[in-house]
Amino acid sequence: MRMSRLFLRTLRDDPAGADIASHRLLLRAGCIRQVASGVYAWLPIGQRVLAKVAQIVREEMDAAGAQEMTMPIVQPRELWEQTKRDVDYGPLMFRLEDRKQARYNLSPTAEEVITTIVAGELESYRDLPMNLYQINWKYRDELRPRFGLLRAREFLMKDAYSFHIDVDDLKRTYQDMYDAYSRVFTRCALTFRPVEGEAGEIGGDTNHEFMAMAAVGEDDVVWCQKCDYAANAEVARRKSETVDGKADAPAREKVHTPDMPGITAVAEHLGVPAGELLKCIAFDLDGEVGLALVPGDRDVNPAALAQAVAPKRARLLADDDFAAHPHVVKGYIGPDAESVALVIADPMVSAPHGWVTGANEIDHHVRSAVLGRDFEVGEWADLVAVVPGDPCPRCGSPLSIDRGIEVGQVFELGTKYSEALGALYTDEAGAQHPMVMGCYGIGISRIITAVVEEHHDEQGIAWPAELAPYDVHLVVIPGKGDEASEVIKTADELYDALANAGVDVLYDDRDASPGVKFADADLLGVPVRLTVGAKGLKRDVVERKLRKTGEESELQITDDLLTVSAEELRTAVL
Amino acid sequence: MRMSRLFLRTLRDDPAGADIASHRLLLRAGCIRQVASGVYAWLPIGQRVLAKVAQIVREEMDAAGAQEMTMPIVQPRELWEQTKRDVDYGPLMFRLEDRKQARYNLSPTAEEVITTIVAGELESYRDLPMNLYQINWKYRDELRPRFGLLRAREFLMKDAYSFHIDVDDLKRTYQDMYDAYSRVFTRCALTFRPVEGEAGEIGGDTNHEFMAMAAVGEDDVVWCQKCDYAANAEVARRKSETVDGKADAPAREKVHTPDMPGITAVAEHLGVPAGELLKCIAFDLDGEVGLALVPGDRDVNPAALAQAVAPKRARLLADDDFAAHPHVVKGYIGPDAESVALVIADPMVSAPHGWVTGANEIDHHVRSAVLGRDFEVGEWADLVAVVPGDPCPRCGSPLSIDRGIEVGQVFELGTKYSEALGALYTDEAGAQHPMVMGCYGIGISRIITAVVEEHHDEQGIAWPAELAPYDVHLVVIPGKGDEASEVIKTADELYDALANAGVDVLYDDRDASPGVKFADADLLGVPVRLTVGAKGLKRDVVERKLRKTGEESELQITDDLLTVSAEELRTAVL
Repeated sequence: MRMSRLFLRTLRDDPAGADIASHRLLLRAGCIRQVASGVYAWLPIGQRVLAKVAQIVREEMDAAGAQEMTMPIVQPRELWEQTKRDVDYGPLMFRLEDRKQARYNLSPTAEEVITTIVAGELESYRDLPMNLYQINWKYRDELRPRFGLLRAREFLMKDAYSFHIDVDDLKRTYQDMYDAYSRVFTRCALTFRPVEGEAGEIGGDTNHEFMAMAAVGEDDVVWCQKCDYAANAEVARRKSETVDGKADAPAREKVHTPDMPGITAVAEHLGVPAGELLKCIAFDLDGEVGLALVPGDRDVNPAALAQAVAPKRARLLADDDFAAHPHVVKGYIGPDAESVALVIADPMVSAPHGWVTGANEIDHHVRSAVLGRDFEVGEWADLVAVVPGDPCPRCGSPLSIDRGIEVGQVFELGTKYSEALGALYTDEAGAQHPMVMGCYGIGISRIITAVVEEHHDEQGIAWPAELAPYDVHLVVIPGKGDEASEVIKTADELYDALANAGVDVLYDDRDASPGVKFADADLLGVPVRLTVGAKGLKRDVVERKLRKTGEESELQITDDLLTVSAEELRTAVL
Repeated sequence: MRMSRLFLRTLRDDPAGADIASHRLLLRAGCIRQVASGVYAWLPIGQRVLAKVAQIVREEMDAAGAQEMTMPIVQPRELWEQTKRDVDYGPLMFRLEDRKQARYNLSPTAEEVITTIVAGELESYRDLPMNLYQINWKYRDELRPRFGLLRAREFLMKDAYSFHIDVDDLKRTYQDMYDAYSRVFTRCALTFRPVEGEAGEIGGDTNHEFMAMAAVGEDDVVWCQKCDYAANAEVARRKSETVDGKADAPAREKVHTPDMPGITAVAEHLGVPAGELLKCIAFDLDGEVGLALVPGDRDVNPAALAQAVAPKRARLLADDDFAAHPHVVKGYIGPDAESVALVIADPMVSAPHGWVTGANEIDHHVRSAVLGRDFEVGEWADLVAVVPGDPCPRCGSPLSIDRGIEVGQVFELGTKYSEALGALYTDEAGAQHPMVMGCYGIGISRIITAVVEEHHDEQGIAWPAELAPYDVHLVVIPGKGDEASEVIKTADELYDALANAGVDVLYDDRDASPGVKFADADLLGVPVRLTVGAKGLKRDVVERKLRKTGEESELQITDDLLTVSAEELRTAVL
């Protein structure tokens, strides 16, 4: 493609409102343009990258035995009501009506549609397993669309759905998908971790998130420095167990802590580390009050608390809620089991220890509160949010925490959808059962954000070869001298020879300065840059520079290079 | 692909509600399934065909110098209001709001978005021409979705938009697109005609529709048996000119025609051919009444009338309207110029002739009404709907009329969008002008309907090779005898050999009867069927049958066939 004809306007300056490198660079390199908040158009350069990522995903899905199809984007809302997910998604769902007031949703995923279709097509254990996928636009009406493609409202996703006779069979396909995903992200040159994940609106049991490690990521990834344990911080746990044994502490003593409703102030006032304070978090438990206890230097992980009290639902008390519970004194809460429905504590609280904790009285705390003597715990559960250095739940080695971008997720769904939508199969004995399902998503457009976050520098993007919009960026620098036409002629010939050899070339044939051309080449990030200039041609060489490493070399551009075999030319250049 | 693993359930019987062959067969062959009215899922077999059509379109667009990109499906309504097209589309548009009550449309086309983008990227005459396209889902909330993919509400369309400094430059790209479209439809094995078309909601000047000729088509195509004139019936004209000279007819005479408000009854009653009656059609013309005159055996073409009175708007009078115009007597209208604002007539009415026409009085007509003596015509315009045998407007030869499916359309848009949305360029002298635009659509999913309509028989689909979901349908008939395992082994080997040779094979390895397998092969319509059976293997042959022609032949299946080169194997089989 000649740049003089390409629909591309690069931007010299960082666009306003683009807060992260990938967003800035994708805009500056003319890959995308915003059309509405969280809604983008893909310009030709970006389109090529998008198609390459989609093709990698397609190849790996096909190789893993999944079959491609396409589900509609406009889906009957009725299906979403049958699984109650219309409510679960709430304002995240785009909804619309047609001219006859029939109600539809714009697809955020497609479990309902595929399960309905499969229910109509498959009926016997002999028809299973079946794994179906599509690559299509998806919709989430995000409250705050941001970071360009990272949290967009219209985005390209690969979603796959598998159907099985039982969980064992599901686990085989789950593993196949897990492996296929690893190959996809490897081919995309991403540094990634599969981590134990949370289910969100999808529901289901076991699941893994594939996290591309990036400082701009919106997820915290907890991972073990020794073993392969890794989990989304929301579901991550530390190794912990309750300790028996009573603390050898003096008697409980009430102390005056005027105007000190916070852990830090109390610890400082009393001259004890925050970790010796007992933090009591009040929460609503289906209309009653519960208390969650963790050490003062720790936070409660809301997802962990939710899991611990399920199927009941926990919600942290808001300021207004305290009025209805005068025995629970905001800022000075103590572990008073008699006044609440449930006291649940993290095992860290079992350490034999005299705790400083609230006195359930304004401006007062107590010292030397001892478990089993001064307060009781009704239930034990892993509640603390993991921090770096915590022991790995699997091997005990120190855990680390890094930020990640979720680029894929694999779920064991179970029978939630097949039961709601009647996807049944008949076994060998003639009995009917709901199919066991899995589902598997990859954010195609989101991968591009992660790739640019990982592969860029001050000058621009440095695309990995498999995703690059072109293989070679050919720059001609004709100069002002008599040899200008000869330089252009050589560049034209090289362009044609490369094209004939099956190399995708972006040819900067514009009437622009070397500075502009080189800056654009660095910004656009094609892996190999070839420069044809007068100086080099005098010595019969073309300059070759690798975008990623900056490594430079020279290619002999004798007549030979233009007449060698396609294979030889490719090898020499790429 | 082994059919035992393929997501495919063929249907023996015609599905209810599928009125045309393509709809029936695409459902029966498991290509598509309806998810909502006019909204379909594409199952794996259909997906493969859809991808092949899209790829043909992509190749021809790229070869013609167009650049692929992707516009969002969810588009800000504000853009559509700037061009007033939100009103033009009316209830055909799917509309929605987000959580912040911002208003959007689901894209039926993308002139507004692309023009806005181009306005931000291109600025100089040097940047033009530019031709951009996308292949993406489009939406029209049809009042009556029907005929499967033919009139769907969600459909895959290629839409291209070109930008130019002037009309001459536009005409070059227009011709390139016209030629590219001809190549696309030729590769899709469609019998098609480019015809002069009407603009619809798009607006603009010159345009051509590409019609795939099919009895189920929703458009009438008028074409000349001699020259290359062809036009949508809505814009088709017959060769006609007004004739001078007064009729030699007796004096005007009122006759009693009791209870005969119709042409046929009056003609019969008076014993004259319908063509000797003068049909007077009353219409509303921006609040006044006009009359359109044509011979009694002819109909007024509403599109022709609209064009003739533009920019005023003509609307045929409804029954209720007549009360307000007592001098225009429904069923007995005569050409009384004094009582109406405009009398407009087709040149056929200029034939020197004593006409029978209405007397503007209940139950009465007149005989021998003569133009220039008994009635006057204010304007002449081509008004009659063309009928077969009419003279070609270009060469005078007889015209034919056939039904067609519109599979593509090319438009000269002019500056409607660039003016409304500020897509300007600066010329060499520094002056600014609106860009001149063209737009070019192809119905990707609709092509599939047209192809099946043209390429099917009683047994099923007969896909043209370039669109077929697979190259070869391999059927194994193991039989009940001892040689069954040997037959299967040979079929397996042939399957592998073909796959290695790059042939896409659908392998019917199911445990099903020969009758079921052959019926499914005929239904699915893969171009070449290979049958491996015990009887043939005794003679070392495999049966080869062409789906389209039924032509049968035998392939020697000695060890040689499995070890010949990929090229030889391909040649032997395909």
